[in-house]
Amino acid sequence: MIERKGKNTIRIKNGVAIKGYAAAVGKKESEGPLAAYFDKIYLDEFCGEETFEKAETHLQKTAIQTALKKAKTAKESIDLCLAGDLLNQCIGSSFGMRDLKLNFAGLYGACSTMALSMALGAILVDSGAVSNTICAASSHFCSAERQYRFPLEYGGQRSPAAQWTVTGAGAVVLEGSGSDTPVISDIIFGSVRDLGIKDSNNMGAAMAPAAAQTIANYLKDTHSIPSDFDMILTGDLGKTGSSILIELLKDEQNLDISSVHRDCGTMIYDLSTQDVHSGGSGCGCSASVVCSCILDEISKGNLKKVFFVGTGALLSPTSSLQKESIPGIAHGILIERKG
Amino acid sequence: MIERKGKNTIRIKNGVAIKGYAAAVGKKESEGPLAAYFDKIYLDEFCGEETFEKAETHLQKTAIQTALKKAKTAKESIDLCLAGDLLNQCIGSSFGMRDLKLNFAGLYGACSTMALSMALGAILVDSGAVSNTICAASSHFCSAERQYRFPLEYGGQRSPAAQWTVTGAGAVVLEGSGSDTPVISDIIFGSVRDLGIKDSNNMGAAMAPAAAQTIANYLKDTHSIPSDFDMILTGDLGKTGSSILIELLKDEQNLDISSVHRDCGTMIYDLSTQDVHSGGSGCGCSASVVCSCILDEISKGNLKKVFFVGTGALLSPTSSLQKESIPGIAHGILIERKG
Repeated sequence: MIERKGKNTIRIKNGVAIKGYAAAVGKKESEGPLAAYFDKIYLDEFCGEETFEKAETHLQKTAIQTALKKAKTAKESIDLCLAGDLLNQCIGSSFGMRDLKLNFAGLYGACSTMALSMALGAILVDSGAVSNTICAASSHFCSAERQYRFPLEYGGQRSPAAQWTVTGAGAVVLEGSGSDTPVISDIIFGSVRDLGIKDSNNMGAAMAPAAAQTIANYLKDTHSIPSDFDMILTGDLGKTGSSILIELLKDEQNLDISSVHRDCGTMIYDLSTQDVHSGGSGCGCSASVVCSCILDEISKGNLKKVFFVGTGALLSPTSSLQKESIPGIAHGILIERKG
Repeated sequence: MIERKGKNTIRIKNGVAIKGYAAAVGKKESEGPLAAYFDKIYLDEFCGEETFEKAETHLQKTAIQTALKKAKTAKESIDLCLAGDLLNQCIGSSFGMRDLKLNFAGLYGACSTMALSMALGAILVDSGAVSNTICAASSHFCSAERQYRFPLEYGGQRSPAAQWTVTGAGAVVLEGSGSDTPVISDIIFGSVRDLGIKDSNNMGAAMAPAAAQTIANYLKDTHSIPSDFDMILTGDLGKTGSSILIELLKDEQNLDISSVHRDCGTMIYDLSTQDVHSGGSGCGCSASVVCSCILDEISKGNLKKVFFVGTGALLSPTSSLQKESIPGIAHGILIERKG
């Protein structure tokens, strides 16, 4: 049962169950504070494949297959997969789908893709259009670096606000409603917000305004206050973007989320020792953090209500060369444990 | 009300109404046989913008705004836009969304994007998650050519199986169910099929196997035969891909769709005089043909049941350089007039 709350929020009354979830990551992520949560760690950045792009496909396939295994769901019984990534033409996902042979709807939400896929997936399951779905997203430091910035061999210096693209993938299996699993119960699709940031080494700043807008809209729609949540979790604002978010919400909305705000980009690495500057980024950042640590802690009952806001910077290298600013977007989902 | 039919088909019992639709195209398209159907024609390939990429955004925005106007729906009342395009990181759509300020879910289905957006949009509306939605897709010859192939200035020769990327965009407004408008009533999401074609100048051949699979699955799920439809319409197989589709369905499935099959890629240009080789292609091909001629003829009652199969080639220039074959996908929707 779906109902609308306020102007933008979609409420799924019984929630859609996250029956299984998994995350696969690379070496640097395995050296960070969340290491123990990940299902699969690849120390080789090629994951045994010939290219970085194929390595990314490998990561996403591993996350999907592991999530299916943990959900005790046969691949053949899956009605649809919703997935995306950062590579041009989303080949990280589509080549994985070729091997997995799942019905496939491709998404592009930049780094907000995991939240977007879970948002659409939950609605599709609740509507009965599909009995279950897999939602997945991935990124890879090496494939992103050479596509968006410089060849790795160039060894370019990184600016202080720059973020480190996470080598990682996450996947969830959504099916039915459930009292003994985490469920997705609220969904809010964001709109583009662009305050004119043009520095593609400062994506946190470009995405923070969109995150602020989505959080403010959601709290208004649901008559909630920040302390109603155990966590308001953004995808990959990093240290720079996170402080902008906190300030924007204070200034524009008189909302203080500082006590419950966390950001996947600052959680996945140790910012003081891992040389990642402002933190992690990429579709794989929130995908691998949500599909490991966050869902684990919700499953254990240590977290009860997490409002997860996937953040995306909808630029391309071409738009930056054409001197365009960076459109940000943020999609939110409430993940909670009802039982 | 949604129900599942067979293994893959989703049936929306009352159908979701296509309340408005529009197509905006370029000069070459205005010289083809469908010229009279288009809402807006741009003789200038820049559409008054500074770059081809911005011109593509302009086309998509025009299609969306015109569809809204024809649907008599205020932009402010739209709950969600589902859109995509072929440009890296889908900037054709995202920069349009920045101006239109609509809640936005980005999609990537290569040239199948229009069918994908209408499929997801119809389910979202029927479920009550949104009260209405806009679905849109676009492509532009000049932005695609320089991204996928060669700089225009190079003047490269084209192979006989090559297709011409359509400069065009289409958009539909979906809302409620309706007896006096075309409705979307069946949906089938496809899975990737790849028979090993590696020639990116022969995308029709790469996509035909996926189209054959989706058509065969749909006919099986719904216990239908080709003559139950006024038209089985593929997105952009072109002349080469269309003959492969007809043959594959005969050989593999003993199905003869030749009397009802049409292809947007062969309809939009005059193949004998317009020097487009195998026909049109791109997200904008099926988007502009469906959102003009096809929906016009269904509205007039000249066509009653059209099974529209959007076809996509999920390659990237990088995957081709890495000697990968081309994964094809095809999503189908039944568009009909119930009243």
